[in-house]
Amino acid sequence: MRVALGVEYDGRAFAGWQSQPHGNTVQDKLNLALSHIACAPINTVAAGRTDAGVHALMQVVHFDVEVERPENAWVRGVNSHLPADIAVVWAKQVDEEFHARFSAFSRSYSYFLLTHPVRSCLLAGKVGWYHQPLDVEAMREAAAHLLGRHDFSSFRAAECQAKSPVKHLQRLDIHEADGFIRFDLLADAFLHHMVRNIVGALVYVGKGTLSPEDMVDLLSARDRRHAPPTFMPDGLYLTGVGYPESFGVTAASDPARLTLWR
Amino acid sequence: MRVALGVEYDGRAFAGWQSQPHGNTVQDKLNLALSHIACAPINTVAAGRTDAGVHALMQVVHFDVEVERPENAWVRGVNSHLPADIAVVWAKQVDEEFHARFSAFSRSYSYFLLTHPVRSCLLAGKVGWYHQPLDVEAMREAAAHLLGRHDFSSFRAAECQAKSPVKHLQRLDIHEADGFIRFDLLADAFLHHMVRNIVGALVYVGKGTLSPEDMVDLLSARDRRHAPPTFMPDGLYLTGVGYPESFGVTAASDPARLTLWR
Repeated sequence: MRVALGVEYDGRAFAGWQSQPHGNTVQDKLNLALSHIACAPINTVAAGRTDAGVHALMQVVHFDVEVERPENAWVRGVNSHLPADIAVVWAKQVDEEFHARFSAFSRSYSYFLLTHPVRSCLLAGKVGWYHQPLDVEAMREAAAHLLGRHDFSSFRAAECQAKSPVKHLQRLDIHEADGFIRFDLLADAFLHHMVRNIVGALVYVGKGTLSPEDMVDLLSARDRRHAPPTFMPDGLYLTGVGYPESFGVTAASDPARLTLWR
Repeated sequence: MRVALGVEYDGRAFAGWQSQPHGNTVQDKLNLALSHIACAPINTVAAGRTDAGVHALMQVVHFDVEVERPENAWVRGVNSHLPADIAVVWAKQVDEEFHARFSAFSRSYSYFLLTHPVRSCLLAGKVGWYHQPLDVEAMREAAAHLLGRHDFSSFRAAECQAKSPVKHLQRLDIHEADGFIRFDLLADAFLHHMVRNIVGALVYVGKGTLSPEDMVDLLSARDRRHAPPTFMPDGLYLTGVGYPESFGVTAASDPARLTLWR
C-alpha cells in the first residue's frame, strides 16, 4: 500500500530534508515516527529536498507500507511521535503509480523578507531580513527577465545534482505589505539554492547595486561567479507541489497555517 | 539620564521577564547587553513582568545611566549584544519622572489561539492550540460579563503579588479569521495569570462545558478553585503600554512585526 502525506515543518533545527548518518534531518524524524505507527521500518520519498534552515508549509512525501491503518493514524498517530517543529497535515492512500518526486510537475516556493531597521525576534529564522527599504518596482522589472524556460546556471549552487540547469520559471510575483516583501515562485523544478540565489540577486536590484537590465546579462552568463551571494535560508518556504489530477493529491498550502494575524 | 526602550521578545527560551539567579530571563539578557554599551552595570524596570513562555511585541522598560549615548546606540548597539529572540525596537531619552511600571495607566495583551485538528509546527510556542472549533459567539457573550471594574480573584494565580485583586478590564474583544481566534485585552493592570485564566474559561464556554452566564457566577465566586485551568502561555503577547501623553512615550505595537502574511 502506498500512502502520501502533506508535511509541514520549521527547518531551523534540522540539517535539511535529506536523511544523514547523524539523524538530525526532517526525513530521519519522519521515517522514525512512521515506523512507530507501522511497526516496521519506513522510508519516505519527498517532492523537494529542502536545505538546512528552509521551511515547508506543504512538503509532499510518499512511502510504502504493508500494514493497513486508517488515514487518521498517519496524521494524529504520527504527529504524537514527531517533534513540535514537524507535523503531518493530511494523509491519503494513493495509487502505486504515484511518486512524490517523479509525478510532480511543479513546485511552489515563497520567500518572506522583512525590510526594517530592526531585525525581528518573534520571526527569527522564519523571515529573511534586510535593514533598508528596497525598490520593489525595480525588483519586479528584474524578475520579469527571469520568467520562462532558461538555463539557470548563474543561480545554481556548485553542489547541485540536477541533470539539467534548464528550468521553466512560470511565476515570480513580488508583493509588498506592512514592511514585508513576499516572493512567490513556481517552476517545474528548482536547482539547488536557485530561489535563494534569485532572491539575493533581486535584493541587489532593490538596493540599486544592480539594474533590472543587469538580470539579463546575469542569466545569459550562465556562471554562478557573476551573481550576487546566496540569500539567507530563513525566509524560504516550500508551499506546494503540483500533480496530475488523476492522482487526487491536492498539495497547495493553506496560508492561514503560517499567518498569525494582519 | 533616564532612557526608555520598546522591547520585543520571543519568550519561549526564557524563564519569564524577571531577573533570576540562573540568569536565563529577558531582564538578565537585556541588563547585560545594556551594560556592554553603557560600560557600567545597568538595571531595567519593566511595565509588565511577563511569565515564562509569554512573548512581547511591545514591552516598555526604563533605566538610568550616567554616560551619554546617541539613541541609536541603545537600539542597534544593544541589539548586537542581544540573543536573536530579544530586540530593542526604539529608545528615547525621558524625563526622570517617567517610570516604566508606575507611570503606566494601561496594559494591552493579545492571545492568539489556533483552532485546527492539527497543531501548528511553524507557529509552535507562538500560538495557543485547541483541536476543535469553538463557539465564538458564546465566548463573546461570556466575555461581556467580565468587562468593567471587578474583583478578579477567580482568575488570579495563588502566587500573585498584586496589592488588590480589583482591576478594570476595559476591553476584551474576540476576533476570528482563518482558523485563528484572537483575544484583545486592555486593563489598568493584570493579575498574575489573569489573561491565561480568562482565556481558559472562555475556551470552556466555546466548547460548551460552561455557558456564557456561568461567567457571572465564576467572577462573583472570587475563588480560583471554581474556574477552569490556566491556558498555555504559548499564544500570549504583551502588545502595548499606556502612558500619559506628557511623557511622549508611545508604546503601541506594530502588528506587522508579528504577521508573516495573510
